[in-house]
Amino acid sequence: MEHKLLESIKLASDVKKLNMEQLNLLCGELRDEIIEKVSETGGHLASNLGAVELTVALHYVFDSPNEPIIWDVGHQCYAHKILTGRDITGIRTEGGLSGFPKSAESEHDLFVAGHASTSVSAALGIAEAKKINGDRNSVVAVVGDGACSGGMIYEALNNAGRSGTNLVVVLNDNEMSISPNVGAMAKYLADIRSREVYFRFKDSLEHTMLKIPFIGRGIFSAARKIKTFFKDMFYSSNTFEHFGFVYLGPADGHDVGMLIRTLRRAQSIKKPVLVHINTVKGKGYAPAEQMPSKFHGVAPFYKENGELKKESGYSFSSAFGESLCRLAEKDDKICAITAAMTDGTGLREFSEKYKERFFDVGIAEEHAMTFAAGLAAGGMKPVFAVYSTFLQRAYDQVLHDASIEPKHVVLGIDRAGIVGGDGETHQGTFDIPILTSIPGITVYCPSNYAELDKNLETAFSSCGVQAVRYPRDKEKEVPEKFSREYGDFDYFAGSEDCLIIAYGRLFAEAAFAAEETGASVLKLGKVFPIEHDVIKTAEKYNKIIFFEESVEFGSIAEHFGAMLNSSGFTGKYEIHCVSGFVPHMNVENAMKLHGLDRESMKKAVKEALK
Amino acid sequence: MEHKLLESIKLASDVKKLNMEQLNLLCGELRDEIIEKVSETGGHLASNLGAVELTVALHYVFDSPNEPIIWDVGHQCYAHKILTGRDITGIRTEGGLSGFPKSAESEHDLFVAGHASTSVSAALGIAEAKKINGDRNSVVAVVGDGACSGGMIYEALNNAGRSGTNLVVVLNDNEMSISPNVGAMAKYLADIRSREVYFRFKDSLEHTMLKIPFIGRGIFSAARKIKTFFKDMFYSSNTFEHFGFVYLGPADGHDVGMLIRTLRRAQSIKKPVLVHINTVKGKGYAPAEQMPSKFHGVAPFYKENGELKKESGYSFSSAFGESLCRLAEKDDKICAITAAMTDGTGLREFSEKYKERFFDVGIAEEHAMTFAAGLAAGGMKPVFAVYSTFLQRAYDQVLHDASIEPKHVVLGIDRAGIVGGDGETHQGTFDIPILTSIPGITVYCPSNYAELDKNLETAFSSCGVQAVRYPRDKEKEVPEKFSREYGDFDYFAGSEDCLIIAYGRLFAEAAFAAEETGASVLKLGKVFPIEHDVIKTAEKYNKIIFFEESVEFGSIAEHFGAMLNSSGFTGKYEIHCVSGFVPHMNVENAMKLHGLDRESMKKAVKEALK
Repeated sequence: MEHKLLESIKLASDVKKLNMEQLNLLCGELRDEIIEKVSETGGHLASNLGAVELTVALHYVFDSPNEPIIWDVGHQCYAHKILTGRDITGIRTEGGLSGFPKSAESEHDLFVAGHASTSVSAALGIAEAKKINGDRNSVVAVVGDGACSGGMIYEALNNAGRSGTNLVVVLNDNEMSISPNVGAMAKYLADIRSREVYFRFKDSLEHTMLKIPFIGRGIFSAARKIKTFFKDMFYSSNTFEHFGFVYLGPADGHDVGMLIRTLRRAQSIKKPVLVHINTVKGKGYAPAEQMPSKFHGVAPFYKENGELKKESGYSFSSAFGESLCRLAEKDDKICAITAAMTDGTGLREFSEKYKERFFDVGIAEEHAMTFAAGLAAGGMKPVFAVYSTFLQRAYDQVLHDASIEPKHVVLGIDRAGIVGGDGETHQGTFDIPILTSIPGITVYCPSNYAELDKNLETAFSSCGVQAVRYPRDKEKEVPEKFSREYGDFDYFAGSEDCLIIAYGRLFAEAAFAAEETGASVLKLGKVFPIEHDVIKTAEKYNKIIFFEESVEFGSIAEHFGAMLNSSGFTGKYEIHCVSGFVPHMNVENAMKLHGLDRESMKKAVKEALK
Repeated sequence: MEHKLLESIKLASDVKKLNMEQLNLLCGELRDEIIEKVSETGGHLASNLGAVELTVALHYVFDSPNEPIIWDVGHQCYAHKILTGRDITGIRTEGGLSGFPKSAESEHDLFVAGHASTSVSAALGIAEAKKINGDRNSVVAVVGDGACSGGMIYEALNNAGRSGTNLVVVLNDNEMSISPNVGAMAKYLADIRSREVYFRFKDSLEHTMLKIPFIGRGIFSAARKIKTFFKDMFYSSNTFEHFGFVYLGPADGHDVGMLIRTLRRAQSIKKPVLVHINTVKGKGYAPAEQMPSKFHGVAPFYKENGELKKESGYSFSSAFGESLCRLAEKDDKICAITAAMTDGTGLREFSEKYKERFFDVGIAEEHAMTFAAGLAAGGMKPVFAVYSTFLQRAYDQVLHDASIEPKHVVLGIDRAGIVGGDGETHQGTFDIPILTSIPGITVYCPSNYAELDKNLETAFSSCGVQAVRYPRDKEKEVPEKFSREYGDFDYFAGSEDCLIIAYGRLFAEAAFAAEETGASVLKLGKVFPIEHDVIKTAEKYNKIIFFEESVEFGSIAEHFGAMLNSSGFTGKYEIHCVSGFVPHMNVENAMKLHGLDRESMKKAVKEALK
């Protein structure tokens, strides 16, 4: 496809040279490019399509990177990447761009994103730094309304309003987070969203008047003074004003002209401004407009009809949802909580079957965890289904609210381990250290669906915080002799004096590696606490190699080593873990890179046996 | 002192039998008792004095524990403890009551507290459990306005409003968190606080009218229908109503009668209600009313005049503040951030000298951390001064916002290690595991003031996240030969084949133990990452004993052991750490209990040498 205007944009500032007709054409070209490229690699489509006009208007009005644009979550940054000279071909795949803002890629990405509700805090920090240094440029944060359920946004707004900085917060309101939005704030936004028609009237009034030289400005300025009139009609007092922001909007987020005028006004007001815009998720691509949740984060698809090139099929998430429904049928105390991830965590069926016992709290992991502890205090048996990376948000709540006085809360930790295309900000490689630091927690890591089912059942019939963690993946085949029903741990004797220890997804690789090298295998099912029996089994070997999909410091492998040592073990003990932050690449390659694939395991065994 | 009414209260429900005069007398007796007992042991005084009438009214109206009262933070629960049959003599000391709600103590404490802003989430969980089980009793959460700067409250309110549960949130507004409140919400509350006179008028109007049988109710009911009148005058639309709450107040929080009437109305409205009350921190005790910050959490004092029995004097916090001022004088990029702990973290002088570079963000640790990362992205050199226990709130922000793309942020971690009287909810024994799980972080743990100064200087001249952690304590004396200027690590050779490793506050104990046993000592200053040189020094020994004021899993001791092991060490390696959650008791006794005092160290050395 030919993108004549796009090709003419070499620098972000080139956007400023275009006229209105060209700006609209540019939006069309950007949309084509995004649909084209995301159909090949998969990625965040619907959210990006909704933010095309906004992105063009932002670069038209603001002078990035001197006036930096901080994207919340980053699900809306593809057009921004393109306009700042980056090629999104192969985005989210190894060697391609990251799917999220990344300062290593461009000076136009001043702050990392991936987790929700962080942008206003970061932008306020940058704005305060500018203020201290006498730099009067604006700093822009772009937040989706979905991120408005997260407490951090509130903490930031609470501080920003009184800051006197040139902060512009753009609230991109598409009535969705990943699923449709929940909570009082969503309802509140819906109320003010409907006032767009007033804002349009005011905008065109001003726009027309300002064209009349001298007189126009005079009339307008006089009109402005009739404060109550304008205030009631256009800037109707609202929650954002209570926070000390000047509120502009709601503006049509697909009208480039209106966006430019509104953002210009925001830029000229030298204090914190909130610009509220209404957009349509998936705008301009019919399948995405019709099914914005499906096309939020989407696998490769045929752009002609939006059909997926390969259906994703059954996974650990599906198995979790199915097991949970089975258990909930027998036990009416079981409740499920999600933080805006009903589909991602496999809870769709549960949410429909057990509506009263299902809670989508929005993007609000801290609340979700303490709310779960509250349900438990009230006699229910809650499970909080959450991605490993987002559980990081609720560390203190797991510790303080659910563990000091133990509450029977089950954690269904999805996307544990290496996650693939989402990269650094989404890796599930930290939950083991943080969970095992908290006294009293039990952690299971099933290697297949049957085991997940069993672990979940055990978790619901135990007490205290019970975590069951599993990857974003399908179960893997193992060699015949390794295929049996597993217990808390299982031991497979080989012919050599070398023991491989692994759990979860890595067990399959370990089994194949053992079969080919003669090593023995110890598979953990309940990975923490580590029982004395497991240590007894392991310490018979002189060479032990632990493979684990976690960062090393605080890993099970490290805990295991400490226990081996205090048990008097003096053999060789090797730890193979994930090192550092894992960038976006497919899971298989990441495993190889970190020495966690079958070949690396075989090599490690052979070297140990030398 | 004689407390006749108090003595007659055997059950919480006995409060219901008293008449108004008696209720007022009871408040006086409770106040006397609290002042008396806190003057002996120290504790949270001003906040508890402000909540006496509220507590009496709550127990008069609600039927605890069937209608549980969940206290946020727990700085207001002393009167509640007394009315539910507990003796606060010796509170916060070993064997005495906890200073916070604790379900092990009483069925009237359904949920633990200590960290701020959790109560609404917990209470909502309990309320939803009641709803599912068809129990129409109310659940009450009592929140101070200070906790309203925390994002969790917002997440909870966002979910609670639409819940249809019988949740009553009492907002106890005393215009303070620990220091005076900050942020837009504080300003907003101040605006509506001033409407108390209207609420009083309405309350007395209703109160009087209702006394006229039949007619009174009829008139009142008719008046109620003039919705706009009432709405504007009394329930003036506000942010809490946007959240879906019925708003009642602001009521005089020291008028028991008005409180009872208002809470009764809240109880009768079968949906979420927010009751806003105005109270005076320190009410009824002149020194505390005049200096509410000083008497928030106070050491033992003479109740006649409020003077402290022993001035607290210079500590690591003071040393931190002093060093920071010294560095900030030379470097105008240095900024300091606190989450409502200006005095606690020793930042008073900085806040006055460098007003423009000082940020108190309120109780909002998540925002504080990402805001710090934003300041760093803007070219400043921020330090976030925070208690170890509250840093747990910002784990994801340290990882996601400050470490994936490293930002030069210094963490000044106060109250690291065992804290004493505050007990389980406030221990600083988890920061080592969580920080060391994050790639790229450097952690220092000075053992004296001079070292703290040096560590801080190094931290500001390095890059990435640099954590300097120190206890709530004074520096300790060490034997002559151990007294010198320290480096990243220091080694003191003894006469025996046994090496003690320790850092921070434990170094002094280790030095004395070594002197008396002939063991060698390895003192870590930079505790993480562990450099190869340190391992080389240690591995010469056959017996190594590591003493550490941290939970074991994820401790430096564990990391050290793993490195020793991979370096080929085959000697005996022992880890002595803090085990589990540490209850309230003085630091010295807690150290003994966990085997971290001098005598335990000597004993461990002797056994190792056997």
